[in-house]
Amino acid sequence: MPADAAFKHREDLIRRVVGVQGFMKLVGTTIDDVVPGGCTLSVEKRPELLQHLGMFHGGVTAFLVDNATTAAAATVMPEGRTTLTAGFTLNYLATAAGDKLICRAKVIKPGRTLVVVSADVYCVADGKEKHTATALATIALIEGDTVAMTKAAGLGP
Amino acid sequence: MPADAAFKHREDLIRRVVGVQGFMKLVGTTIDDVVPGGCTLSVEKRPELLQHLGMFHGGVTAFLVDNATTAAAATVMPEGRTTLTAGFTLNYLATAAGDKLICRAKVIKPGRTLVVVSADVYCVADGKEKHTATALATIALIEGDTVAMTKAAGLGP
Amino acid sequence: MPADAAFKHREDLIRRVVGVQGFMKLVGTTIDDVVPGGCTLSVEKRPELLQHLGMFHGGVTAFLVDNATTAAAATVMPEGRTTLTAGFTLNYLATAAGDKLICRAKVIKPGRTLVVVSADVYCVADGKEKHTATALATIALIEGDTVAMTKAAGLGP
Amino acid sequence: MPADAAFKHREDLIRRVVGVQGFMKLVGTTIDDVVPGGCTLSVEKRPELLQHLGMFHGGVTAFLVDNATTAAAATVMPEGRTTLTAGFTLNYLATAAGDKLICRAKVIKPGRTLVVVSADVYCVADGKEKHTATALATIALIEGDTVAMTKAAGLGP
Repeated sequence: MPADAAFKHREDLIRRVVGVQGFMKLVGTTIDDVVPGGCTLSVEKRPELLQHLGMFHGGVTAFLVDNATTAAAATVMPEGRTTLTAGFTLNYLATAAGDKLICRAKVIKPGRTLVVVSADVYCVADGKEKHTATALATIALIEGDTVAMTKAAGLGP
Repeated sequence: MPADAAFKHREDLIRRVVGVQGFMKLVGTTIDDVVPGGCTLSVEKRPELLQHLGMFHGGVTAFLVDNATTAAAATVMPEGRTTLTAGFTLNYLATAAGDKLICRAKVIKPGRTLVVVSADVYCVADGKEKHTATALATIALIEGDTVAMTKAAGLGP
Repeated sequence: MPADAAFKHREDLIRRVVGVQGFMKLVGTTIDDVVPGGCTLSVEKRPELLQHLGMFHGGVTAFLVDNATTAAAATVMPEGRTTLTAGFTLNYLATAAGDKLICRAKVIKPGRTLVVVSADVYCVADGKEKHTATALATIALIEGDTVAMTKAAGLGP
Repeated sequence: MPADAAFKHREDLIRRVVGVQGFMKLVGTTIDDVVPGGCTLSVEKRPELLQHLGMFHGGVTAFLVDNATTAAAATVMPEGRTTLTAGFTLNYLATAAGDKLICRAKVIKPGRTLVVVSADVYCVADGKEKHTATALATIALIEGDTVAMTKAAGLGP
């Protein structure tokens, strides 16, 4: 399979697996981009995503970081492996007041056992992006077939 | 005001402010406990909170950590200050398969400028708690009146 | 080999490998304790370990955390594996003014691929311990023979 | 005072304060660069800085991150404030085999209370830089006069 077709296959798998996640749908997240080594997720402002001051809740930022970094790691994962998120560090840089929250994750260091991924979160207000959070995630790769595991869980894709 | 009454006042404030958060309600979070130096939050299993393998989504754990650690910091905050979450580190320890997810946050180090809070997340399955995540959060304290700020945002409490 | 003898063997290996590290000797670190799931390291006050205010340098705390958490992970590692420190998060809690700095690391979650270890650092002043830092480390386990690798590097043990 | 002169004054202060640190001298660290929002530190290979496999010890990387990020924060600090390192997260990306270790710290987000700083560590081998670690640090700014405090500690500068 040519590299382009192989990546298209991987991209489809990631979009389908992430797409069946109940929490992904509850939050109302859009998968904007899945490229080799990267993933971009975003959410539009809704009262259900805010905290007590009317800004995007820190938990929404944290969810986007968790999911976008894991998906970015999955884009560079060898065949026959599946992702296991070891954890992440999240630093908030500014309050997330605006209409849209975008999380861009980028693989810093691929690896056979561990993938290190950075993520930056931006809030769009008045058409301008403000950098509101930065994060570093560590994703472990273990043996497994994500599609088979997802099917076994009765959730598609 | 006696210490007990003063804390009761603080607890009420925290419960009300956290209670008006849109994301808190979307996730369906219960405030189990607010004590001096601590806060416990939990969620019951619902399909909307799961990932593709039918386990609690890492983003739910991350949200609980964000909110419980900030609330725990607010329990030890001097009057006239408000919390500003600087960030946290979250390590996943085990998959969160079960009926309920509980996050217990505890202040490790109170301070005038910074409060350091640890959090541990447990998943309840077959009546037993499994330790599924551990976290360390740093909460900054800045000048501000949380209630006034929340009212100004039009959200109560 | 009985469990006790097997652990004694592991403990010896850890003490010898850590003992040949040049930086360990430069800092003048004592290995106080190596037990299943734990390791304690300490340093005595010397001008060479301080920062500009006469307290233990944050870098000394960070070094102790790095080394003690990795050694603690090595105590629970299966045979035929070697440690690869993925990283750690370190929160300083108080200034480290005192005569001795002690770092106690403890495995929170052993695993085949990843071991999560916490560490707490205490500074002893006037015979009392003050909690000066807390940390969480992630140690990856990869295939390898630590002794053979150390010998190949020409450093013993 | 013109901006250039004001920064020169700040740079001198940072170089002098960091220069009197005992641990800085023990490790043998060079201050390569202090610019607005940034600081670069480096060390040359010596047996005293290595671990058991002959590579730079993780503790050396951690020390460089601690010191370079704090110095970078000091370059953007308002007058009358001093730095208090809240903590950092460090992810190792590759083994640090080489002749020189360079840590470049850069302020991501200046602030009145907190400064967020990233740091990247590179190991030079055969004239090429390899990215061996990445970090995120949070530095608190508190009231204080660093020079006066350093003098009071009897350490110059």
